[in-house]
Amino acid sequence: MEFIYILNLAGIVVFAISGALTASDYKMDAFGSVVIAFITALGGGTIRDLLLDYHPIGWVADPNYLYAVLVAVALSYLFKRWIASLRRTMFLFDTIGIGLFAVLGTEKTLGLDMHMIIAIMMGVVSAVFGGVLRDVLIGRVPLIFRKEIYATACLAGVVLYVVLLQFNIPSYLTLIIPILMIMVIRLLAVKYEWSLPGIK
Amino acid sequence: MEFIYILNLAGIVVFAISGALTASDYKMDAFGSVVIAFITALGGGTIRDLLLDYHPIGWVADPNYLYAVLVAVALSYLFKRWIASLRRTMFLFDTIGIGLFAVLGTEKTLGLDMHMIIAIMMGVVSAVFGGVLRDVLIGRVPLIFRKEIYATACLAGVVLYVVLLQFNIPSYLTLIIPILMIMVIRLLAVKYEWSLPGIK
Amino acid sequence: MEFIYILNLAGIVVFAISGALTASDYKMDAFGSVVIAFITALGGGTIRDLLLDYHPIGWVADPNYLYAVLVAVALSYLFKRWIASLRRTMFLFDTIGIGLFAVLGTEKTLGLDMHMIIAIMMGVVSAVFGGVLRDVLIGRVPLIFRKEIYATACLAGVVLYVVLLQFNIPSYLTLIIPILMIMVIRLLAVKYEWSLPGIK
Repeated sequence: MEFIYILNLAGIVVFAISGALTASDYKMDAFGSVVIAFITALGGGTIRDLLLDYHPIGWVADPNYLYAVLVAVALSYLFKRWIASLRRTMFLFDTIGIGLFAVLGTEKTLGLDMHMIIAIMMGVVSAVFGGVLRDVLIGRVPLIFRKEIYATACLAGVVLYVVLLQFNIPSYLTLIIPILMIMVIRLLAVKYEWSLPGIK
Repeated sequence: MEFIYILNLAGIVVFAISGALTASDYKMDAFGSVVIAFITALGGGTIRDLLLDYHPIGWVADPNYLYAVLVAVALSYLFKRWIASLRRTMFLFDTIGIGLFAVLGTEKTLGLDMHMIIAIMMGVVSAVFGGVLRDVLIGRVPLIFRKEIYATACLAGVVLYVVLLQFNIPSYLTLIIPILMIMVIRLLAVKYEWSLPGIK
Repeated sequence: MEFIYILNLAGIVVFAISGALTASDYKMDAFGSVVIAFITALGGGTIRDLLLDYHPIGWVADPNYLYAVLVAVALSYLFKRWIASLRRTMFLFDTIGIGLFAVLGTEKTLGLDMHMIIAIMMGVVSAVFGGVLRDVLIGRVPLIFRKEIYATACLAGVVLYVVLLQFNIPSYLTLIIPILMIMVIRLLAVKYEWSLPGIK
């Protein structure tokens, strides 16, 4: 549990840094950077908790999530050039974060005795809606609706997670295998420019 | 009740199809289509339930609402051309759906012992905020703020509904008369291009 | 308390008028004006209450808030020219409203036994997120992320409020001093065109 908590905080830091960098691309000031970083990192989980009426929401109960966002924004200001040079590493961490958020979101929802399809949906919401809110706030059509296949990767991952839960597998494997699958799909998708079809 | 439940599901299918067609106009992929269809069909009721602290939210408690959205998106993919040729029929169903969502939203709010003005407002929110959310997500200014008079039609309908409740009228008439009124106003408004004035 | 309640309603009227004027700049109709006025005036508090799971939300429990919005929109329609000529007075009231909403938002959150950093954050959310929602709905990037320093003024004010609470000061001073500080910072910021740096 301890380990997952720390991984979760790390995921928040990475998402928040990516939010802060986006804010700087859009020439926002420090306040805007904090808001966008916060929403990128914590928006998906917040929407999930509101929809499920799960209170207090994670970051309301535990300010460490907020501190993680503030630290991330400070790092983005102090080491912008260095972080920009780490785009590949950042992308890798971002992919880990997405997988983690997706699987943990589904796990949390199942723990509330919700229907399986709600749990699958909430896993995807946890992972991708922070980015959707970010895009709406900076005034662009959410990227995820157009190009990136990572919502689909999350969906595949959380479905696999729900399937694995039916078997007698050690719980750490049940968590790790879907996260790895989400990572692999996303990395392959970016490499080979996979995309979903739309309605013709 | 059974009949209203089925009508409600039918309304969701129609709204979701219109959402999926909009998503395809904006060249979104399958994931985007599902999200936009979901939000168009269920967004208004979700906002109402969140504001009233009514949990579990309809579709969280009853996955049939989600299945209705998925079926609608599948239909949009499979029969796009045929559905497009049915624009008039679709528009009629859409108008029925709006009237139904408005009146049922007001009825639900009154059932929670809320003030009448809140119930009226929630009827309008139920019917139109799905479309507002859809427009925000695809990056256009909500249509409803500019041209279509249908929010006003909903308002008139739910006010009539609240008035009819004061009289000793069979409950199915109390439901149907306002829905018919919303339909008639909207159809006339579209035919004669009525619009509300703004601040000059 | 009575006095704060009336001040709060006055703040809502001013925010709602500014929302209605913005709606008219964007050529919205009467329905759009009411929605934008409502969201400008009550959106920040609504988001705060949803995040804190505080129900019923202020305006759900007390329709006077809704009436204040409707009165404000009616005034905007009837006296548009006169109100436009009062821009300076409006700006002053707007600044009072922001200070008031920020401090009262923090006070309310502390009353729910929340962590101090959550209370500070909720003060800022109460004061500025109505404007953020308004900007998103009318399709522009929230102003506050780019230019105006008033989020920072709110932050400074609510931090001062939390500090003053630690001392043995009459409660009306604890409220008024931070509100004055928010007003002074904002007025100076506008006069001297202060702005926050972004990430270079």
